[in-house]
Amino acid sequence: MVHNGIEYGDMQLIAEAYDLIKNATGLSAPQMSGIFGEWNNAELSSYLIEITRDCLAKMDSETGKPLVDVIVDKAEQKGTGKWTSQDALDVGVPIPTINSAVEGRLLSAFKDERVAASKIIPGPSARCKVSKKKLITAVRDALYAAKICSYAQGMSLLRLASKEYGFNLNFGELARIWKGGCIIRARLLDQIKKAFQRNPDLPNLLVDPEFCQAVTVRQANWRLAVKTAVEMGIPYLAHSASLAYFDSYRRDRLPQNLTQAQRDYFGAHTYERLDKPPGQKFHTEWTA
Amino acid sequence: MVHNGIEYGDMQLIAEAYDLIKNATGLSAPQMSGIFGEWNNAELSSYLIEITRDCLAKMDSETGKPLVDVIVDKAEQKGTGKWTSQDALDVGVPIPTINSAVEGRLLSAFKDERVAASKIIPGPSARCKVSKKKLITAVRDALYAAKICSYAQGMSLLRLASKEYGFNLNFGELARIWKGGCIIRARLLDQIKKAFQRNPDLPNLLVDPEFCQAVTVRQANWRLAVKTAVEMGIPYLAHSASLAYFDSYRRDRLPQNLTQAQRDYFGAHTYERLDKPPGQKFHTEWTA
Repeated sequence: MVHNGIEYGDMQLIAEAYDLIKNATGLSAPQMSGIFGEWNNAELSSYLIEITRDCLAKMDSETGKPLVDVIVDKAEQKGTGKWTSQDALDVGVPIPTINSAVEGRLLSAFKDERVAASKIIPGPSARCKVSKKKLITAVRDALYAAKICSYAQGMSLLRLASKEYGFNLNFGELARIWKGGCIIRARLLDQIKKAFQRNPDLPNLLVDPEFCQAVTVRQANWRLAVKTAVEMGIPYLAHSASLAYFDSYRRDRLPQNLTQAQRDYFGAHTYERLDKPPGQKFHTEWTA
Repeated sequence: MVHNGIEYGDMQLIAEAYDLIKNATGLSAPQMSGIFGEWNNAELSSYLIEITRDCLAKMDSETGKPLVDVIVDKAEQKGTGKWTSQDALDVGVPIPTINSAVEGRLLSAFKDERVAASKIIPGPSARCKVSKKKLITAVRDALYAAKICSYAQGMSLLRLASKEYGFNLNFGELARIWKGGCIIRARLLDQIKKAFQRNPDLPNLLVDPEFCQAVTVRQANWRLAVKTAVEMGIPYLAHSASLAYFDSYRRDRLPQNLTQAQRDYFGAHTYERLDKPPGQKFHTEWTA
């Protein structure tokens, strides 16, 4: 199930990368096929990048157009992504990239509403501010960094589900198994296997030295790709979710102190203090 | 239940707005209390903005610091947000802002992992590029636009759940009821009531003329706030989710044509064509 959730994440990230390059550069599907073909020779090498290359290259014999250009943009799903999202909520593990992939498919299915809305709601008119080459490199780096965050979420779900349900999973071995014929087979899985060999109790892929390095060297380009999508009005649902996951996970202090204050204010739900032992609960009469 | 999901969305959006202003401007909690106090006199006027003003103003008698600054940043939850997310998945309605609010609370709860990660993973060093005044205005506009998108999602869930379960809900009446003592009571609910009076079958708040106008005039500032957060490494999980929802909903063409091509490639799941009647399914031998 988690394999399939990760697969949803990968596919949504690839769809967003394709959408941004298409709209920012105006390249045709066969031209983009060449880009994915190049990406498949380096760190992104994977079955899904390989078939993206092939899908974008395929011409439609009936119209003479690239086949993807005549395919309806309504993604279907068989339910394993949804199941992953629902189970992660039960286990209490944040997997925003995988969730956003499910949301992306749901949004795409509202085709009639979208067509009607497109005639009413104006988008931004911004054009891409960076060169074609720089944008394509940024999208590639963003895709790899966002993908790592998605796998970090999936492995985190497995780790905590393994504890909760007593599965006693071996995560490095899982990564090895997924290399054999699965849809998510990829060079990245070797890195994941090695990370868990280095530390079988790794709490999150992002704190493994090699993954930390891989993401942080791509950080500027990742942010550039997301900013460009935000400016141009291209929905970067999964990339943004990965980035917010990264920016939340690496911060010791998040703003949920305010959330706890609000909850204590309206519901006397109490809060903990930074200067008192964990578990000690406080309540304030906020309006007194 | 959906009321509570919307409440989660509001609280996460407010927490993110607070976090960005705090980190971009260095204002103290009592200074930010003044900003929320001003916001409470205009379009954002609501119980949650009002109590945010009060929470930020409260001083801790023990340390002399603002009380929010000594509260632990781990949000708890009683499960109604999670329940909304899980139910929306069953009904098949995308509610990314509400989902991201649940994810934000879950992420905050991983405090020990975050503290450890903060010593390992470097963030960006970017400073805010716009003036304090411009940033605060952008954050305010972003908060209102993102909040409208969150309510659009909640009402969309109610509309489709009402169909699915035969609830026969009156959405304008719901908005009116929520004004009476609920945690999400707000001036915005009057606008929602009016929107459904104008059109009881409104498919989405975003295509109501007044809401469409309210969001689109704030669009540039909304994108500016999100871009600033992305640059500075402040997680804008719910704001980004609202923006991606907006940018998906208003587009007639999304990139899930590629997703459908991939699904047909690896699983022969078939696809529909733009130039053929809906429901007619096609399959391609992609590698032939």
